[in-house]
Amino acid sequence: MRDVVRAYIEKYQLLTESLPVLVGVSGGADSIALLTFLVESGYSCIAAHCNFHLRGDESMRDEQFTREYAGQLNVPFLKVDFDTRQYAAERHLSIEMAARELRYNWFEEQRLATGAQAIAVAHHRDDSVETLLMNLVRGTGIRGMSGIRPRNGFVVRPLLAVSRADILEWLAGRNLRYVTDSTNESDAYTRNFIRLRVLPLLEELNPSVKTAIARTSEHLAAAEAVYLHVVEEARGRVVEPGDRLSIAALMRYPSPDAILYELLKTYNFTRLVAEAVYLSLTKEPGKVFYSSTHRLIKDRDYLLLSPLVKEEVKEYILTGDEQNWSGPVELSFEKVVIKEDFHIRKDKNIAYFDYDKLTFPLTLRTWKEGDWFIPFGMKGRKKLSDYFSDRKFSRLDKEQTWLLCSGDAVIWVVGERPDNRFCLDKMTKSVLVVHFFPTKSESK
Amino acid sequence: MRDVVRAYIEKYQLLTESLPVLVGVSGGADSIALLTFLVESGYSCIAAHCNFHLRGDESMRDEQFTREYAGQLNVPFLKVDFDTRQYAAERHLSIEMAARELRYNWFEEQRLATGAQAIAVAHHRDDSVETLLMNLVRGTGIRGMSGIRPRNGFVVRPLLAVSRADILEWLAGRNLRYVTDSTNESDAYTRNFIRLRVLPLLEELNPSVKTAIARTSEHLAAAEAVYLHVVEEARGRVVEPGDRLSIAALMRYPSPDAILYELLKTYNFTRLVAEAVYLSLTKEPGKVFYSSTHRLIKDRDYLLLSPLVKEEVKEYILTGDEQNWSGPVELSFEKVVIKEDFHIRKDKNIAYFDYDKLTFPLTLRTWKEGDWFIPFGMKGRKKLSDYFSDRKFSRLDKEQTWLLCSGDAVIWVVGERPDNRFCLDKMTKSVLVVHFFPTKSESK
Repeated sequence: MRDVVRAYIEKYQLLTESLPVLVGVSGGADSIALLTFLVESGYSCIAAHCNFHLRGDESMRDEQFTREYAGQLNVPFLKVDFDTRQYAAERHLSIEMAARELRYNWFEEQRLATGAQAIAVAHHRDDSVETLLMNLVRGTGIRGMSGIRPRNGFVVRPLLAVSRADILEWLAGRNLRYVTDSTNESDAYTRNFIRLRVLPLLEELNPSVKTAIARTSEHLAAAEAVYLHVVEEARGRVVEPGDRLSIAALMRYPSPDAILYELLKTYNFTRLVAEAVYLSLTKEPGKVFYSSTHRLIKDRDYLLLSPLVKEEVKEYILTGDEQNWSGPVELSFEKVVIKEDFHIRKDKNIAYFDYDKLTFPLTLRTWKEGDWFIPFGMKGRKKLSDYFSDRKFSRLDKEQTWLLCSGDAVIWVVGERPDNRFCLDKMTKSVLVVHFFPTKSESK
Repeated sequence: MRDVVRAYIEKYQLLTESLPVLVGVSGGADSIALLTFLVESGYSCIAAHCNFHLRGDESMRDEQFTREYAGQLNVPFLKVDFDTRQYAAERHLSIEMAARELRYNWFEEQRLATGAQAIAVAHHRDDSVETLLMNLVRGTGIRGMSGIRPRNGFVVRPLLAVSRADILEWLAGRNLRYVTDSTNESDAYTRNFIRLRVLPLLEELNPSVKTAIARTSEHLAAAEAVYLHVVEEARGRVVEPGDRLSIAALMRYPSPDAILYELLKTYNFTRLVAEAVYLSLTKEPGKVFYSSTHRLIKDRDYLLLSPLVKEEVKEYILTGDEQNWSGPVELSFEKVVIKEDFHIRKDKNIAYFDYDKLTFPLTLRTWKEGDWFIPFGMKGRKKLSDYFSDRKFSRLDKEQTWLLCSGDAVIWVVGERPDNRFCLDKMTKSVLVVHFFPTKSESK
């Protein structure tokens, strides 16, 4: 392991020996190995531990363990306490996202305060391979296929070249203890499924499949760097002052559709809307597209962008048989006749409606004063304004929440909760299944 | 299906209605659907059938069926007979490669003879998704992750937007018959494994996983086009007359390591050798690297390439613990202690040797007059020159065949056959497993 990690640090120039390095240490196997390895290799380390207070006594035990181990190594120990649940609730984040945000913000503060050269974290090759497969299963672009990066700003990952097994073996070889790191990742189910079921199956085809995927991700990361270089060049040539995109300049690039998506992403357009914009380029001027923050008008030679005025009425008509619909959000609709094997997935991004209870076309619009619905599983009306304030929605959250309506009735607070009146019952014959695709957050 | 395929043909401008199109028809479900669809959509089609004579009566039945069906549709029918086995043997190709070469060469001849605009073949979305996963499991680059192309020269694939299930449903809806297409793919095992075991498992995570992967491959194909555009630009700026590569010009690109690999690939350098060349750029001049056809010298400001003189002695020393070794060929070595679950894969690119029968270091070299070995499973010596002529090796084949040697003994004609003296027996405790990675052919 030693030589591999050293070569990796050198290859990506992750660390120099002259300045201290802040090491994120949870107390789990990976981070204990990372800290030990860096100390033994002569780097001047500072251990940084976040107590997220998510697991009661266990959280305290981990802090205590990490503090003692840092003491044993003669390494300065920094720690912080977070009320992760409250932070998540206030900002309407998943626990996982909240913990990540808290962790990296605090690491960065500590890096500045201590004058450390970098923040070293303990992701290893299996994390990267699993992340790539998770992204592939969900659908992704080149970014999601290039694995976890060795360096991202000041965050460096020296262990990416070694596997989980390598790390455990290395720890066992020196009798090092660690705590068992029960993560709070919301995607833990998917990650475990990939780790325990998908990868072993792929190993039947190729015993070195993890190496093969890790290598693939390195190749794609290199291709991605080339791609992003062209995107940045295009940004300089295509985007003119006043947020005008020159269609002629765009069309000089290879894959102008992909380049257009990258440029429009800055204005919060989704990929599907960007594809629709691209198809409009050869058509008559005048067509208008929306993102959550911007309006785009297809003019003769330019795409004209302007920030959305908040009061602008935004209402879309939907026939309910759009396979992939994309306005400010992405939705897909599917009509399914109930058979024996019909089953419902518990996922707040999927809603199931009794087809025969709906009036078509449907509409999709933002909230307005006086809106109400009957939340699924409840009997009484609930004002949207109350629902929002119960859920501690910010003004922006409210503006960005979409309502799917049938006639005057709100049938789904999209991505949140369906209305009880339109749900399936014993008489239901056909179901309208609506998928909502939230804008994907960057991979781990 | 109709609208999806039409939209796909339009999106990639695969076909126009003004000129005839040659349609490859095996008689299987996919190609019967393709031919029927194109005829019904008003394209002027010519059915082209290859009889590879690999399955006796079944081959004749398929030809007969296809001929009759073309007649029913009033479509001209062209066919050809191939002695596929002989062609494969003569050219030292797998049956699958031979059939592919024969098929596409003949299609191209017929396209020219008939004045057809394109050659339409029946690959569908599942083929593309399976190919992507097969490449990922083996390890690949951006090319292998961008799926099967809608257009490759004159070959077009209008059905890539629809799934196998879509096609079967469409055929069933019109009571169309087809023959069952028992393929001769050497990778049929892997493809079936992916189709029947891996994909259903991934569908537990995401029921639309095939759509997700297909969409991912489209995004990667767009990124690849951008990447290849930069590679071609770099070829113009980095490669100077006389096959000199300017190091300074190379280093101005993002991911110069990836660009270097792309440029050196033209001279048959493998990725691993290209990586070694890249690492040498910052070192002293003078280092020499080989591909199967070229020598590269790292000079001060340039990489100097020259064709290999055939008589040049090429011999490499190997310690037998190289994880990934790469000279003119790529090899990996692994020492395995035999346990109960040890099993041998029948693959001519993997050789298993009794570790204790070997003398280290090993050497890798090309053939010279007088070489002999005892082919696995046999008792007597066989001269390499006889082995080669039995196998109808060309002069070039012989020059490109590598021998792994222990002391004076040839232990493996790499990728061909190991020596019987070094094989495993009941006393074997440890095994040296050697993998040979032949240069990968382009994906289907």
